[in-house]
Amino acid sequence: MSAEKAYKELTERCREIAVLSSCAGVLGWDERTYMPRGGAQMRAEQLSLLSGMIHSKFTDPRMGELLEELQSSDLAEGDTPEAANIREIKYKFDKATKLPKSLVEEITKTTTLSQGEWVTARKNNDFKHFQPWLEKVLALQIRKADAYGYEGEPYNALLDDYEVGATVDDVADTFEKLRADLVVLLQKIKGAPKKPDVSIVNRDYDVRLQAVFGESVAQAMGYSFETGRLDVTTHPFCTGLGPGDTRITTRYNPKRLNDALFGIMHEAGHGLYEMGLDKENNFGMPIAESASLGIHESQSRMWENQVGRSKQFWKYFYPQAQRIFKESLAGVDLDDFYAAINNVAPSYIRVEADEATYNLHILLRFELERAMVKGDLKPDDVPGEWNSRFEKYFDMKVDTDANGCLQDVHWSAGYMGYFPTYALGNLYSAQFFAQAQKDIPDLMTEIEQGNLLVLRQWLKDNIHRHGSRYRATRLVEKVTGQPLSHKPLVDYMTAKFGEIYGF
Amino acid sequence: MSAEKAYKELTERCREIAVLSSCAGVLGWDERTYMPRGGAQMRAEQLSLLSGMIHSKFTDPRMGELLEELQSSDLAEGDTPEAANIREIKYKFDKATKLPKSLVEEITKTTTLSQGEWVTARKNNDFKHFQPWLEKVLALQIRKADAYGYEGEPYNALLDDYEVGATVDDVADTFEKLRADLVVLLQKIKGAPKKPDVSIVNRDYDVRLQAVFGESVAQAMGYSFETGRLDVTTHPFCTGLGPGDTRITTRYNPKRLNDALFGIMHEAGHGLYEMGLDKENNFGMPIAESASLGIHESQSRMWENQVGRSKQFWKYFYPQAQRIFKESLAGVDLDDFYAAINNVAPSYIRVEADEATYNLHILLRFELERAMVKGDLKPDDVPGEWNSRFEKYFDMKVDTDANGCLQDVHWSAGYMGYFPTYALGNLYSAQFFAQAQKDIPDLMTEIEQGNLLVLRQWLKDNIHRHGSRYRATRLVEKVTGQPLSHKPLVDYMTAKFGEIYGF
Repeated sequence: MSAEKAYKELTERCREIAVLSSCAGVLGWDERTYMPRGGAQMRAEQLSLLSGMIHSKFTDPRMGELLEELQSSDLAEGDTPEAANIREIKYKFDKATKLPKSLVEEITKTTTLSQGEWVTARKNNDFKHFQPWLEKVLALQIRKADAYGYEGEPYNALLDDYEVGATVDDVADTFEKLRADLVVLLQKIKGAPKKPDVSIVNRDYDVRLQAVFGESVAQAMGYSFETGRLDVTTHPFCTGLGPGDTRITTRYNPKRLNDALFGIMHEAGHGLYEMGLDKENNFGMPIAESASLGIHESQSRMWENQVGRSKQFWKYFYPQAQRIFKESLAGVDLDDFYAAINNVAPSYIRVEADEATYNLHILLRFELERAMVKGDLKPDDVPGEWNSRFEKYFDMKVDTDANGCLQDVHWSAGYMGYFPTYALGNLYSAQFFAQAQKDIPDLMTEIEQGNLLVLRQWLKDNIHRHGSRYRATRLVEKVTGQPLSHKPLVDYMTAKFGEIYGF
Repeated sequence: MSAEKAYKELTERCREIAVLSSCAGVLGWDERTYMPRGGAQMRAEQLSLLSGMIHSKFTDPRMGELLEELQSSDLAEGDTPEAANIREIKYKFDKATKLPKSLVEEITKTTTLSQGEWVTARKNNDFKHFQPWLEKVLALQIRKADAYGYEGEPYNALLDDYEVGATVDDVADTFEKLRADLVVLLQKIKGAPKKPDVSIVNRDYDVRLQAVFGESVAQAMGYSFETGRLDVTTHPFCTGLGPGDTRITTRYNPKRLNDALFGIMHEAGHGLYEMGLDKENNFGMPIAESASLGIHESQSRMWENQVGRSKQFWKYFYPQAQRIFKESLAGVDLDDFYAAINNVAPSYIRVEADEATYNLHILLRFELERAMVKGDLKPDDVPGEWNSRFEKYFDMKVDTDANGCLQDVHWSAGYMGYFPTYALGNLYSAQFFAQAQKDIPDLMTEIEQGNLLVLRQWLKDNIHRHGSRYRATRLVEKVTGQPLSHKPLVDYMTAKFGEIYGF
């Protein structure tokens, strides 16, 4: 068989798998938006059937044969899209075939139960109730890492599931530097002379008007409602359902402007990435898939923070906001509004954290889960370790485990290695945005005039269109000329909060 | 292998097929409700992949082996649920394996194109444009009938796809009697002294209030919003997506009360049937599937017409309607409202037809398509034949083919044999409802008091719970003690319209 023929067959098989996955995607979207409660059990059965089929198709021995053949062919040479596709599919195939079916099933079974027990534990603020489950999940995660194989620490194998090619040493090094700078920044903010008036964003904001405003902002970003939708859900998400269909969701708080507004910008940022991938021509192939979770998150965070929480953005959009939310924003200065949406206040709960403290929440979790996987921290000791680190980083005492180590679903769900991607997303976003400002010297002026599409185009050209042709680490270097660094994020925050807080 | 073991494997295979079909069901629902326009192409690819998989699984030779084994076992004996399951699965399996793949593909390809050409032809009122496509579709339908095999006319094989076990001779005989009586009834109505004031239902009816009222009626019927939903679409439908998930849709006309209101009752009637099938225990097996399209339609038409257009129903619900639609119904008598929702007026378009003329539309189509399939009527002669029959039945001249033989999608889509199920549904519904009134002597009094659940329970016990354990013809006899007859429908209409029109 010629390499061309093998490549063609590989492409067809990958497309079929992607089409089947997109069916599961639609079912997942429906589950979280409109499905009646009574449908939950059948939905689980539908999704489990589809995921079983997808797994079988992807791990079909024929896939191995084709990849074997292609790896030793000319098509795998050089820096071409074809070579990238072969490399990434082979990589995923090897990982998928390394996990024994019995282990996958045990993980699924245990994490399903464990999530239920976590809900109870959090509700009752009872870590001891969750502890045996954390132990079980942890043991399975370590077995998973062993099955994958790894260099250095087993955590590397877990991290690789979410941020392919990242190594724990590199990540830890960057995070360590970031943490040191963030703690200093937060102290400055704490002691600063100016304080934003947050009551401005915590007034009555009619939900229907929030939707109108949010949609107009998403549209200005380039999010297309011909190929997308915005719906309501409990835990907002974005989902790419194939070429021509990328959907976002949000939730509205009638007493608070920030949640849905920045939530919509965040999800629309993910959405633009999905819409910018070359699915029209390469659906199912890695070059039409996102580079990593961290890179995906960089797109959402850039739109949410670097754009959505910038003064320039609001120079253009604030008058519109004032027209729409007549009563709550009447007589409120742009500067006061801008300060209110950028208020920094250490708090217990990660998902409610502001831009400056958010990363500390992540770093704390990363350090703890890394230590657990390494065997340096026993589940029994997690609450104590959590609380002492939290106090050190946030200068605040944790009141209860429900507000501490029991707050997130991730560990109960077996998502160890996932947390770092949130902070990596923030780091990438700052580094990318700094580069965009270099490449487009009047970018901030364009934003000030509501021309957000300039940035969108830059993201498309520099990031979206590559898909996962380059892995995250290399993509960052390719786009910015530098390896990942904590500096752009720290510089950006220091400048911004310095101005707002007056230090 | 023991019969029990074979039956167990058959059950598992059928369940898997049903789960996969329900995935396609969710995608179909989404396509017609929320999918962004850009997703159309991928949706076609998703659905075609799933339907290919479903077909392969259902026609797997292993299915044939199991059925062979079971057919000659004790399990196939007698009148048990198991025997019914084996009988019906074997019947469908034989049909599915009789059609060569090449013919199925040719039909799919041709009807896809043909529907597009039909849209153009109808828009331009140009039958000649559609004629070659009608010829192609017809030839393929005849080839399909030949592949299935049949007794008597080839139309029998096509009808069987939609109303299993029905024969064209029986249907034609009943329809002929019905037509004769309907033509007389319409003449009486035409010459009647009283005329309803239809303007009552053609006023401003706020869409959101229509939704509130429609949902409250559906709920009173027993339609559960815990296991169902009501959404907006262009062509309303009901879809059963498995245990615990049955959804209905409607469309609202802000200037007309009837469309959404009776549309919701109609779809909720279908919905109650789906909810009443024993999917909890037998999902994927014939005894948890509807008996036929005609029986399904009988459930929707009964709620829409026998209940929803009855005086007794409105004795209870009219005061609520008056409270909700304050302005449009202010000062309108119950009797005048009742007459308005029951107005009879011959018209060109089937989907807009009233209860009395609707069946004539169907009969006309049935006669023409039967003659076409038999070779007695050439597509070339369809407009002339349509128009002359229409004038005879409706006492009205057809003005254009767009309002005549070009109005329905069915022929372009290859749905020959489908139309009769609409009229069969009306016939079944009247015969069932007459029986329900015998079995529950105070049924109409219960309805007058808003107790619709009495009827719902009767339908569950007598019809829903059987699924397709009995084929339609036998089910009618089992439930009513009589073979299908045109009399209950004619008697019901004569009494009702006699009172309204005063003849």
